[in-house]
Amino acid sequence: MIDLVIRGGTIITASDTFVADVGIRDGKVVQIASDLRGAGPELDATGKLVVPGAVDAHVHMAPVFGTPKADDFESGTRAAAAGGVTSFVDFACQLEGQPLRAAVEAAQALARDKAIVDYSFHIAVADPTPDIVAELPEVIADGFPSLKLFMHRANFHARITEFMRLVAQGARHGALTAVHCEFQPVIAYVTEQLLAAGKTDPRYFPESRPIHAETAATAEAVSFCQAAEAPIYVVHLSNAQALEVTTAARRVGLPVYVETRPVYLYLTDERYQLPGRESGKYVVFPPLRTKLDQKALWDGLGSGLIHTLATDHSPITTDAKTDPCRTFAEIPPGAPAIQTLLPMLYSEGVAKGRITANRWVELVSTNPAKLFGLYPDKGTIAVGSDADLVIFDSAVTRTIDGARMHSRAGHDPFDGFQVQGWPSVTLSRGEVVYEKDRVVGRPGRGKLLRRRRFTTL
Amino acid sequence: MIDLVIRGGTIITASDTFVADVGIRDGKVVQIASDLRGAGPELDATGKLVVPGAVDAHVHMAPVFGTPKADDFESGTRAAAAGGVTSFVDFACQLEGQPLRAAVEAAQALARDKAIVDYSFHIAVADPTPDIVAELPEVIADGFPSLKLFMHRANFHARITEFMRLVAQGARHGALTAVHCEFQPVIAYVTEQLLAAGKTDPRYFPESRPIHAETAATAEAVSFCQAAEAPIYVVHLSNAQALEVTTAARRVGLPVYVETRPVYLYLTDERYQLPGRESGKYVVFPPLRTKLDQKALWDGLGSGLIHTLATDHSPITTDAKTDPCRTFAEIPPGAPAIQTLLPMLYSEGVAKGRITANRWVELVSTNPAKLFGLYPDKGTIAVGSDADLVIFDSAVTRTIDGARMHSRAGHDPFDGFQVQGWPSVTLSRGEVVYEKDRVVGRPGRGKLLRRRRFTTL
Amino acid sequence: MIDLVIRGGTIITASDTFVADVGIRDGKVVQIASDLRGAGPELDATGKLVVPGAVDAHVHMAPVFGTPKADDFESGTRAAAAGGVTSFVDFACQLEGQPLRAAVEAAQALARDKAIVDYSFHIAVADPTPDIVAELPEVIADGFPSLKLFMHRANFHARITEFMRLVAQGARHGALTAVHCEFQPVIAYVTEQLLAAGKTDPRYFPESRPIHAETAATAEAVSFCQAAEAPIYVVHLSNAQALEVTTAARRVGLPVYVETRPVYLYLTDERYQLPGRESGKYVVFPPLRTKLDQKALWDGLGSGLIHTLATDHSPITTDAKTDPCRTFAEIPPGAPAIQTLLPMLYSEGVAKGRITANRWVELVSTNPAKLFGLYPDKGTIAVGSDADLVIFDSAVTRTIDGARMHSRAGHDPFDGFQVQGWPSVTLSRGEVVYEKDRVVGRPGRGKLLRRRRFTTL
Amino acid sequence: MIDLVIRGGTIITASDTFVADVGIRDGKVVQIASDLRGAGPELDATGKLVVPGAVDAHVHMAPVFGTPKADDFESGTRAAAAGGVTSFVDFACQLEGQPLRAAVEAAQALARDKAIVDYSFHIAVADPTPDIVAELPEVIADGFPSLKLFMHRANFHARITEFMRLVAQGARHGALTAVHCEFQPVIAYVTEQLLAAGKTDPRYFPESRPIHAETAATAEAVSFCQAAEAPIYVVHLSNAQALEVTTAARRVGLPVYVETRPVYLYLTDERYQLPGRESGKYVVFPPLRTKLDQKALWDGLGSGLIHTLATDHSPITTDAKTDPCRTFAEIPPGAPAIQTLLPMLYSEGVAKGRITANRWVELVSTNPAKLFGLYPDKGTIAVGSDADLVIFDSAVTRTIDGARMHSRAGHDPFDGFQVQGWPSVTLSRGEVVYEKDRVVGRPGRGKLLRRRRFTTL
Repeated sequence: MIDLVIRGGTIITASDTFVADVGIRDGKVVQIASDLRGAGPELDATGKLVVPGAVDAHVHMAPVFGTPKADDFESGTRAAAAGGVTSFVDFACQLEGQPLRAAVEAAQALARDKAIVDYSFHIAVADPTPDIVAELPEVIADGFPSLKLFMHRANFHARITEFMRLVAQGARHGALTAVHCEFQPVIAYVTEQLLAAGKTDPRYFPESRPIHAETAATAEAVSFCQAAEAPIYVVHLSNAQALEVTTAARRVGLPVYVETRPVYLYLTDERYQLPGRESGKYVVFPPLRTKLDQKALWDGLGSGLIHTLATDHSPITTDAKTDPCRTFAEIPPGAPAIQTLLPMLYSEGVAKGRITANRWVELVSTNPAKLFGLYPDKGTIAVGSDADLVIFDSAVTRTIDGARMHSRAGHDPFDGFQVQGWPSVTLSRGEVVYEKDRVVGRPGRGKLLRRRRFTTL
Repeated sequence: MIDLVIRGGTIITASDTFVADVGIRDGKVVQIASDLRGAGPELDATGKLVVPGAVDAHVHMAPVFGTPKADDFESGTRAAAAGGVTSFVDFACQLEGQPLRAAVEAAQALARDKAIVDYSFHIAVADPTPDIVAELPEVIADGFPSLKLFMHRANFHARITEFMRLVAQGARHGALTAVHCEFQPVIAYVTEQLLAAGKTDPRYFPESRPIHAETAATAEAVSFCQAAEAPIYVVHLSNAQALEVTTAARRVGLPVYVETRPVYLYLTDERYQLPGRESGKYVVFPPLRTKLDQKALWDGLGSGLIHTLATDHSPITTDAKTDPCRTFAEIPPGAPAIQTLLPMLYSEGVAKGRITANRWVELVSTNPAKLFGLYPDKGTIAVGSDADLVIFDSAVTRTIDGARMHSRAGHDPFDGFQVQGWPSVTLSRGEVVYEKDRVVGRPGRGKLLRRRRFTTL
Repeated sequence: MIDLVIRGGTIITASDTFVADVGIRDGKVVQIASDLRGAGPELDATGKLVVPGAVDAHVHMAPVFGTPKADDFESGTRAAAAGGVTSFVDFACQLEGQPLRAAVEAAQALARDKAIVDYSFHIAVADPTPDIVAELPEVIADGFPSLKLFMHRANFHARITEFMRLVAQGARHGALTAVHCEFQPVIAYVTEQLLAAGKTDPRYFPESRPIHAETAATAEAVSFCQAAEAPIYVVHLSNAQALEVTTAARRVGLPVYVETRPVYLYLTDERYQLPGRESGKYVVFPPLRTKLDQKALWDGLGSGLIHTLATDHSPITTDAKTDPCRTFAEIPPGAPAIQTLLPMLYSEGVAKGRITANRWVELVSTNPAKLFGLYPDKGTIAVGSDADLVIFDSAVTRTIDGARMHSRAGHDPFDGFQVQGWPSVTLSRGEVVYEKDRVVGRPGRGKLLRRRRFTTL
Repeated sequence: MIDLVIRGGTIITASDTFVADVGIRDGKVVQIASDLRGAGPELDATGKLVVPGAVDAHVHMAPVFGTPKADDFESGTRAAAAGGVTSFVDFACQLEGQPLRAAVEAAQALARDKAIVDYSFHIAVADPTPDIVAELPEVIADGFPSLKLFMHRANFHARITEFMRLVAQGARHGALTAVHCEFQPVIAYVTEQLLAAGKTDPRYFPESRPIHAETAATAEAVSFCQAAEAPIYVVHLSNAQALEVTTAARRVGLPVYVETRPVYLYLTDERYQLPGRESGKYVVFPPLRTKLDQKALWDGLGSGLIHTLATDHSPITTDAKTDPCRTFAEIPPGAPAIQTLLPMLYSEGVAKGRITANRWVELVSTNPAKLFGLYPDKGTIAVGSDADLVIFDSAVTRTIDGARMHSRAGHDPFDGFQVQGWPSVTLSRGEVVYEKDRVVGRPGRGKLLRRRRFTTL
């Protein structure tokens, strides 16, 4: 009656902590009990944590509007499985003239034979024509109820009203709109000034994308989503002022959700002072911020003012990041992060006493699953949920070394960090995909996830 | 092997919602499963919700520094059981010269033979002498790790430094300090002015305890707890400005927790305009506030800026509340609330779409249990927890009528409210204490709860 | 030696109040003394106030990008003189392809033979090409050191970076940038929705331009001016939230100045509930706001968080404002206001005890003169300043009646208001241009004012 | 007809800047003119600034509740005259049992034969009995319309309601209440902890009086003055958070005024790291704060959110400040400051471009004169005002050296600062009291100032 028992672990959900056995059948959790009898296969989790697999809401393995990343769905999901990420949401980027459905199919085609864990796609639109607005409800109904806006792209500010029609249409049909909040005209202007002044080195990069540009764009996004009567999900919020904008919006009851990103929690803008081209590795949008911002983000995680941690996994090769011939504006933005999402937050957050283990699970698994319509299949350990589980050994320590990780980036932003806690085993729908430091899941076994409509947290 | 099965209900915890059977043995939850085999007794919960019993963190059945309330532990816990409250924390009020232990014993003596559900006590101190400070660690170690300060009492501001020593001692030993934040000297002055001007009617009552007096006291409390390096729990926060003070404190990472109270969520200061002495029923500390404040509190519940809902159950007879010979300052403060805690929040919050069902459980059960050291015995449905469970029928509707409720107050602040959702069955440690509209638990079966130390949410 | 003495009045400047005689020679103040001997002409100001002529920083008599207003420079400056406004700044609007100098000359040509009081122009640019950016320094050097941006115009958001180059160029050469802060894409979207729903009546107008659209645009403006290292002057700020944005900016030391406008101080959005098409008269950008916003603006005037009061005098005929065939979006925006600027603020502000008489002078005369480079010629009563003076009778009362005022609008937003205080005599450069309720200044006597560079307040 | 002409200086008032001659008769300004004819004595101010004498609203030359300072009224007013301070307000401290009138007379007796410049007294009360409350109106009517509360004194929090009766009585009769905002119970507790831990060195002093203690007390003061319907003047505000409290109060229209103090503008808490006992010199209440606080204060001066700069001149001998036998809690608090008030703010503020020259005059002369009822006799240069004038040479530079200054403290907190700008001549009521680096005014010539009632700024 039971295919597999996870025996004796400490189960951590977003709200609970208790020791129990977990019984799995047909890829789903069917029993949680104090002493589960059974004669079948078992995994011993005694002394370890058993947590729901992480749900990474912000991942780039597919090309972004045509620009490829260093990972494809095979290397990327290998990193995911090894890191305890059992599902994630990438982006189906509609190109000019392309129907949404075609964009989804194109993205899916890249993943189908390669993915080791489950995945889905946000809908990102280059060209929000009336046809696209009209097509959106079908795509949502097909299981893709989330949009992504890129305020930092060159054309965005010229077409906000058109994007609002898209966002409003999405909201009417149950989609959540994720927004990259950076005020493009300001960035364009400041970048132009810096380059004209010969300030081309990556150490000038953070000046080119100032805190006030993120803050103002966040205020804009709150305004246009409010006008469109749409819930909003602010991605990779990086600074204290922008967090005040979202907090003020929440205080008056607006449906505003906030994501932050590992690099802002563990690193600060001091990295841009690194010698040579090493600083180029930290060209991420928005840039690394100050220690004060970093503290505000941790406090926001603890207070529930930030709802998710997602990676914006965007692997770029070390060569491209550190190429001495490139100005800061020519370095491809992004950093790999999916493999360390779960252990880094445990190590820096839970082990250091900044957040509870329940908050850890909530931030990287339960909340993203709920916001993006994957819950209750994903995001928790409950009767009826998918058996996407991680047996996590909180006692083990590791040193991060990007060169030995699964992403093809070849480096990691946290290289050299000592972490406490690491996944021992990752299960996807009851199947072991990672154990004993080896990814054992078969490429192609990962499934496309058709998602539910947005509901409030 | 299983004493009782709760069959087929929708289980709601602070983070999860799923259909499953719950198996109980020796008063504890031992199995949660999709199809629990067993031949023993069952309760059918099909189509109903199964939630952890509410944990009311703020209750007065014992006298407050000698002043009795209309309920004793029998009538009060009868109301609790009928309302789905399976544990609560009352106050052991130390009188001048009395050791803490004696105060705890005196409180316990009142409850021992009467309580139908489980209970514990916060430590409230009249006279924070060095001896009391010295005695505190033992009392905490005995299972009473929480203090209560009454800033609105006449003597408080003269002795803050002494209270800080007590608070700091408590924090060092794992106690959480609950604070009633109202700035007594302001209230005394304004009351004096109003009475001198002949403004003695209860409709002047809200003027006597202005919003700024609560706000300033909240700022004070944040300051002195910060100086004492102590976590703080602000009780019955009632207004938007005070919530800004606590939110600002949380934003910089201070361990500040916030409770609000049913009367502020469902009523506003318009009640003081009621004719005759009816308005006297709404003499509660702090007073009912404006619609804007009410909205801010609801937004705060939704955002996680408010952590618990507790009743401050303080039943006073209708005669005393509406006595035409009393000035507003002579009306005993307080209102009954424990029986409606769970259904009112479901009805006004969940059924009206303001909060999720998970937040409902979190606010009235999980969070108070965690903050006051009752978790994981109380506050959730998990393997190993006490089987304090409520089968809640979300389809039934009722009209609140205090005259027919269990509290001896004889009225209810929400008289006449139509509510959707009502407890069908209440179980305490696996035993049915309420069903079919009757309290069936035996007085004296309720246990004194010795609690764990405070940990952060 | 002295051409004219103003005898015995109470002189009010932005900081001082004292009784003295004022001696004028060659159009300038040359003596201020307790007992000025002289045998020449005198004006008796005993028992009256003597204040510097108002400086209206925001006036439309010239067409705005080709759209004419109901007043030309003759009717408009007649209204100005009668109201005690002795200088003002209108707009030289550059049309596509037009050099700035041509725009200034075109504006000046309209004013030259008609103006009764002195005037200047802000530079408003339709098309911020590199040529225009290159031309700007000359125009500033010629005496026009201020720019105006219209964020509510259709094209603005597509060209922000270009406008930033213009603003930065202006700042480098000493210009202050005035910004109309409304987030156009939101307004366009909401207007489209309202019209599509058949909500075309002017009572829907305020919904079309929500508070959050002004607030977000203000945040944007603070961001792009900060990036351009330019001081900013937010025109006609109308709501409490936007004032929080500017206040936050000032608290961190940014050079952000705030103007508000009479309609927001004396009227609220209740006007949109007026029957028939009367509400159309109140179609102004941004719309009238709530009572709470109104209170915040008054508090801001008192606290110095708002720096100027200017009229945005934009007269539209009553027929056009109340035309029943027009949707709210087709009603030309604007209202006449220049004639009542000084007396309305005295009556509602000083006489009602909300602000001091010194603040009155500071808001309508000294601060605008300083910010826009007219000080010390204009904006005060000091030795060496132009004798632009108003003898103001604070005892007289009047009822506002737009039908009998000088603007060709034919109505006034404050029709029916009883005011206390009215100008008795207006002098422009020592010459009486208004007295005994008659405008006696000759059209064409008004001079083009070439202004100094911006300096901080 | 004219006793003295100040010829050719640049006159600076709170709002104006212009070149003119000033004519003085009978100690008052009677003419301000472009070319003043006269045959009498003259002082040449060509190329120099002519400013109203500074009005120091916060000075201790009289003992504070019995504790003497290093200066008496002779040495102290010598320093004042040399620094361009021509009037100031010290404190008449009522001792227990003493009538207010006796306190005023005692203070006056100390000043009468010694003061070189004019002075008055705030009323400070040790024991706010009903008799004292009853006596207050007479003392106000006699010309002493200001109260001072010391929240940092041991007994204050026990007697707030009594102090509120005093404050309300004062407000009804036109007094402004100045408040020292520090939360005494917190300071007492933290000091006790530090001393118990052996942290007695002055470098621990700032920890003993934390920012949150000032902030919370400021919130309390806003609350109790609001309840007493009294305007409030927060003295020596030192940190950014407290400034947020006062700014929030002003934003809702409360009559809250803010003073800061030179030490917070020019120094930071780095001074407490000085070796040996040098750090003891910086024991002032509240302590020096962080660079961030310092910036917030400068921004507040520029924005008008801070209204006055006053010295809290409290000279203590170098021996007492640096005595190695004293714990930080035993070092008498305070620093000399009156001689450098005017030049330091010119040098650090005006010369460095942080504030305008008009703001300089407003902060140290006009605003304190207005708030404390000395205007228009003091605080400006206008016809009818006292000829309290300073000819200020903005070109000269000096190095601060407390050993050579007039205060008997023997040191200065700004020792070693290079300043630009220094008084050349000080006139008090038309009489030169300081010139050519010598104080020439006669002790005893200073007059007791009977002041007007509070009016709003």
